[in-house]
This record gives sequence, structure tokens and C-alpha cells, in this order.
Amino acid sequence: MSLSVSQLVLRARQLDIEALRQLARRVDLADVIGRLVHALQRERGAASLFLASGGQRFATERQTAVDKAQPIETALRELFAEQLAPEHGATSRTLSLMAWVMLDLDALRALRAAIEQRGPTAHDAVAAYSRVIAGLVELVFHLADAAADPGISRLLVAYVHLVQGKEAAGQERAVGAQLFASGTCDDTEQQRIVHLIDAQERCLRVFEEFADDAQRARWQQHHLTPVVAQLERLRRTLCTARPGAALDSALSESWFEVSSARITEMGQLQNDLVHGLRQACADQIQRAEQALQDSEGLLRQLRDNPPPHTHAVERFFNSAAQPEAAPVLSAVADGTKAAPGGAAVSSLVELLQTQSARLASMEAELDTARRALHERKIIERAKGALMSRLGLTEEAAFRALQKSAMDHNRRLLDVAEATLALPDIAFAARHGSTHQK
Amino acid sequence: MSLSVSQLVLRARQLDIEALRQLARRVDLADVIGRLVHALQRERGAASLFLASGGQRFATERQTAVDKAQPIETALRELFAEQLAPEHGATSRTLSLMAWVMLDLDALRALRAAIEQRGPTAHDAVAAYSRVIAGLVELVFHLADAAADPGISRLLVAYVHLVQGKEAAGQERAVGAQLFASGTCDDTEQQRIVHLIDAQERCLRVFEEFADDAQRARWQQHHLTPVVAQLERLRRTLCTARPGAALDSALSESWFEVSSARITEMGQLQNDLVHGLRQACADQIQRAEQALQDSEGLLRQLRDNPPPHTHAVERFFNSAAQPEAAPVLSAVADGTKAAPGGAAVSSLVELLQTQSARLASMEAELDTARRALHERKIIERAKGALMSRLGLTEEAAFRALQKSAMDHNRRLLDVAEATLALPDIAFAARHGSTHQK
Repeated sequence: MSLSVSQLVLRARQLDIEALRQLARRVDLADVIGRLVHALQRERGAASLFLASGGQRFATERQTAVDKAQPIETALRELFAEQLAPEHGATSRTLSLMAWVMLDLDALRALRAAIEQRGPTAHDAVAAYSRVIAGLVELVFHLADAAADPGISRLLVAYVHLVQGKEAAGQERAVGAQLFASGTCDDTEQQRIVHLIDAQERCLRVFEEFADDAQRARWQQHHLTPVVAQLERLRRTLCTARPGAALDSALSESWFEVSSARITEMGQLQNDLVHGLRQACADQIQRAEQALQDSEGLLRQLRDNPPPHTHAVERFFNSAAQPEAAPVLSAVADGTKAAPGGAAVSSLVELLQTQSARLASMEAELDTARRALHERKIIERAKGALMSRLGLTEEAAFRALQKSAMDHNRRLLDVAEATLALPDIAFAARHGSTHQK
Repeated sequence: MSLSVSQLVLRARQLDIEALRQLARRVDLADVIGRLVHALQRERGAASLFLASGGQRFATERQTAVDKAQPIETALRELFAEQLAPEHGATSRTLSLMAWVMLDLDALRALRAAIEQRGPTAHDAVAAYSRVIAGLVELVFHLADAAADPGISRLLVAYVHLVQGKEAAGQERAVGAQLFASGTCDDTEQQRIVHLIDAQERCLRVFEEFADDAQRARWQQHHLTPVVAQLERLRRTLCTARPGAALDSALSESWFEVSSARITEMGQLQNDLVHGLRQACADQIQRAEQALQDSEGLLRQLRDNPPPHTHAVERFFNSAAQPEAAPVLSAVADGTKAAPGGAAVSSLVELLQTQSARLASMEAELDTARRALHERKIIERAKGALMSRLGLTEEAAFRALQKSAMDHNRRLLDVAEATLALPDIAFAARHGSTHQK
């Protein structure tokens, strides 16, 4: 038995623990991002109402929201700074996304000052906040990718889809409130509401699929509450009114209230999920530390009883005498019944088998979680390509993908992949010809 | 502008360089593994002929082969030891696979001693060496996964498929030589030859797809040589003879000669590929170091001219006055035409955009390489599941997958995925019912 084999086995177990610790820190980061998104959603709502009222109302609420967001922002910046240290295992991609978020956060100060002076319109302020939140959501999606543990990965997938679904709900609340308050239905805004409801439901379906049973049950229970029933009635009013038709502007407040109640419920689910994620990380780290201790103990025993190599030769002969072809490794593993040295090698093989089996089964399970994130990434990227190449809005880009999927009876993912595979020139040609018409 | 944004950007660039250096070391590792596989293939051939001749022939050739393999084995062990250091970025999975290989290598000593005493049959010795080589091939496939650069990834995918194709060719050479030498055709061995030719061609198709143009051309040129023509004639003789029919045992030597010529050509391609990989790594590292220097220079300039935040507010107003909704970031990026501070922020944004665009385009290209490795991994795993659960041979397992794919008109990959998705119980039931019949 070579000492190096046990060194490799021990180091592999140590790396398992390191990977889990890095994952736990990623969960902390995802938590703070989720809380900052929540705070900015409130700030966006208050700023929008403050600007829409010509600065007459919601000045205090807006200031309170800003005061609540700032310490979370500071905490996030501190966590970003920590990620510069090599032991945190951040990749180049992660740091680049963080840099984008940081630029957005740096610009927030100017945005707040401008809003205080009632510079931007309510609509522009909502757009600016939504852009910052989109960057944060992008980062949290990236952090959820490639987690080292399948159970934790599943919860992370649930978490990021909940955060994204909640953001769609937040935007729906803002757009709906403005639409009701305006007193008149508008086609473009109606389309946005429909799109935001769609986007929400897609995210929340993934959340339900990956959340644990208790969370899923709680969320499904929430669907049966009077709050959701009233939200659905108001959604129907908004979505079915003909463009130009009058809307009861008094409903704006009820709309805001029921939308907020639903978002609050999502916020609680979000906190619960983080709690579950922290618990899962702690459990896995404890288990991995126990496994490392056990391995160390076993390997100490093995080192005290090194196997004489002559026995290995003997074992090979025994095994080679079998009718079937005798692979070297099974010859070595068969040593249990042979000399004491054989038992040592066999224990080492067992140790390695446990590690390998664990890694292999994890890999298969991780595939499911990865696929969910991959699907979202590809669809978002295809949407982005259509937006930038054809100058479409987000809704129009998504509808184009959806229509193509339906027309050709293919999955949305396949259409998105095909879209990304098209060279730029194809878009240029199509775009050009559209202009010529 | 926050200093932290530039810290994140610089650190991201540093991590790019670190990832490329780790990749260069993985290439070194893959090279030594490829050379050890080559040496063990020779040793396997010599040992097989030594044992088949009752120790009368090939004793010197075998000893020469062992002497050639040993320093490569030592070099590999040294590289393994290096991978224990944290800066090499080895994962738990990599180290576990290395530990398996190390166990196999430790057992080689006993195998060689046994062969010297003419213990095992030629067939068993071939099986034992093949097992060791399979572990090495598995490791090299794993090392090729998730490379940080698409160009290098493509070459690695070509490399590992060439190594695996070459191993199938090596096994074909051994099985064919024994079959010719035996003087009688045998159904089971014939099936193995057919399977090994199939496996080779699948690997070499992937090699051709991912190799660079010069390599592909060279390989296609090789197909037109008289050596390959003669190999194909001998393959036809072997594959079309009826079981039990006589084979001209004198052809054994010609078979060995032409098979070896083809394997030598593959070995040269393998060396060329490693050369290309080393060159590509060096180029990428140089490019990344240049990019880091450029960024450092640019950021030093930016730090010397910090932008006053008042200008940011102004820029936001300008931008918010546009008819379209003004996202915060574009407001910041628009600053080029404004005050000097604006130019600084804009340069930073450009820097970040370069980095992000590079990462995004790499990700898309990497997908292609990853998919090729993923496909192979899933099919190998499904084959392994069928072998262990239904007690099938490798060939039978592969044929079962192939047949199912043809019967249901589905891709081999889909069938393999479906196979892996089946719970153990399904196999238990099917296995049981087969036995009852």
C-alpha cells in the first residue's frame, strides 16, 4: 500500500469540507442579495408613489425604505470584499458579475439624490430600480450554479426562482398600481402585466418543484387564501379591460394591498428557505468532518500495519486462477480473506469506494438542479439576443420565442438554443429586411 | 467610482491567469497519462506474447517495455503528489480518480512479478493491463472536463478521444493477434473485434470533429495509406470467418505489424496534440497577462482622476430626460461626453464589458466541448449500469443500448439517460424474470 493513496483520499475529503464551507458562504451572500432585493423593491414602490404624487406623499416612507436598504447594501459590499480572498473560491465570472452589481450600487446614490429633487418620472425611477434588481438577481442565479451538494443545490434552485418570481410580482404590483391610478386602461401596460404574471408563474413552478414538501404545501395553501382570490379578481379587471376603457382609480390601493400581502408571503418563504439552506450546509459540513475523522482513524490503523507486497503477488495468483478474467483491482480488493496486509488494502479500497460512490450519485442528482438553471440561462440569453439584435422589448422577445416554440411544436429551450446558434449575420439580414418593408 | 469595482475587475483577470496556469498543468498531467497508456499498451502486448509462447519469446521485449514504463510511472506519481497543493485547484473528484489509478499502479508490481513467473494466462494478463489503462483513460477524460478556455477545451476533447480510440485499437491488436495465432475463429472474440472497431470509430469521429485542421487532414491522409488498406483486409478476414473455421496463423504477424503501424501514427498525433495544447496554453497565458497589465495601467489612470459624484447626478438627469426609460447603468456609461469623472467611469464600464463579453462568448463555445464529454460520460455510465445490474459484458451492454436506440428511433444519448433514470428495482425485476424463463 502506498502512503500517497491515503494522502489523496484524505485530501479529497478535506476538499469536500472546503467546498461545503464555500457553499455556506455563498448561501450567506445569496441571503443578503435576497434581502437587498426586498429592500430595493420597497424603495422602488415608495419612490414611485412619491414621484407620482409630485412629492406630496410617501416622502417619509421613501426615506425609511432608503434607511433600511443602506445597511444591507453595506453588508453586501463587505461580503463582496471577502470574496477577493482566494480561499473563498470565487471564479472570474462571479467577480465580474459582482463588479457589475457594484457599479449599479455606486449609481444608486445619484439616483436617490435625483429622486429627492423629483428629477425623474415615476416610470423612469421604477425602470432604474428594476435594472439594479435585475443585476442582483443575475448574480444570485450565478451563485446557485454548480453547488457541491445535491440537496443544497435543490434548495438554491428553489431560492433563486422564488427571488426572481418575487421580483416579477413586485414589478406587477408597480405597473398595476400605476395603471389603476391612471384611471384608464392602456394596451402596452396591459401586455406588461400579462407578461409579468407569466414570468412569475414560470419561476414559481420551478420553486415548487425544487422546494421541500413543507414549503411547497405552505405555498399551495397560500393560493387558497382570500388575498389571492382578490388579487386574481383585480388581475382579471386589469387584463380584460379594453384599451382606453376607464379603470376605477380607487382600486389602486386595494391592488397595492393584496399584491403586497402576496409579496410579504413570498418574503417569508424566502427567509425560511435561507434558514433551511443554512441548516443543510451545517449538517453536511458536520457529516463531512465526521467522514474525515473516520478516514483519518482508519488510515492511521493501516499505516501501523503495512501489507507485505509478497501477499499481493499471492492474491493475484489466487484471483488469476478464477475462470473469469481477473482485473488487478478486484484481485487487490479480494484480499480480505488473505493476510493482514490484504485486509489493510481492502479497507483502503472500501474507503475509496465510499467516496467514489458518493461523488457519482451526487453528480447524477446535481444534473437535475443544473438543468433547471441551465434552461433559465439559455432562455434569458436568447431573449437578450433578440432584444439587442432586433431591438425588441423583453415581452416581445419572450413572445417571439414562445410563438416559435408553439408553431414548430418544440420546447422553449430548444428554440432558445437554436436562436443562440444563429450567427449575427442572420439577425442583421432579418432586421434589415424588416426595415426595408 | 468605487475602488472596489476595479479591485474586482483586477482580481477577475488574475483568476483568469490562475485558471489558465492550472489548465497548463492539467495538460502536463494528461500528457504523462497518455504516454503511460502508450507504454503500458506495449508492455501488455509483449507480456501477452511472452505468456502465450510459454516464456520462450519476447522476454527481452517485455523487460524493455517495463523499463520504459517505469520512469513515466514515477513522473506521474510526482505530478499526482503536486496536485495535493491547494494552488493546483484539484477537486475532490479528481483526487479520488487519482487514488484509484494509484491503487492500480501499486498493484502493477505484483502483476509484473506474476507474469515473470508465468503465473497468469495471456488472456488474464491482457485483461489486467486493460483494466489499469481504463482507469488512466477515465482520469484523462475527467481532466479534460471544464477547461477554462474554449480553444484549449476543443483540443483536450480531441486528445482524450484519440487516447481512448488508440486504446480500443490496442485491444483490437491484442485480440486479433491471439485470434489469428490460435488458428481457429471464435464467435465471442469475433464479437469483441467488431465492438472494438465500433468503439474506435466513435472515438475517432469525435477526435476529427475537435482536432485542428492540420491534424484532421493528416489523419484523413493516413486512411488512404496501404497500411490501412491491409488492416481493413485483415479485419474483413477476421470478422467474416465463420465460428470454428480455420484462420491462417501466419497472418498473426502481419496483423500485429499493420495494427502497430496505425497505433504508432495515433501516438504521433497524440504527441502533436500535446504540443499544440502546450502552445495554446502559453499563448492564452501571455494574452491574459497582457490584459491584466493593460487593466492595471488603465485603472491607475482612473485612480489618479477620481470622478466627482455630482457629475453622476447630472448625467442621470441628462439620461432620464431621454424619451426611453433610462437604466442607471446606461446613464453612467453615457458619461463619456460629460466631465472627466464621467470618462473614468466609462472606461471602467468598457473594461468590465470586455471581460463580461469574453466570458459569455467563452461559455457558449465551451458548451460544445462539454457536451461531447458529457455524452461520452452518460453512455459509459449507462453501459456500466447494465453491466453491473444485469451482469452483461461491455459489448453486450453497448449493443443493448444501441438496439434500444434503433428500435425506438432515439439518440443513443437519450437511451443512455433513460437507462440511468430507471430505479434499481426495475433492473432487479427484469433480471429476475430473465432468470425464471
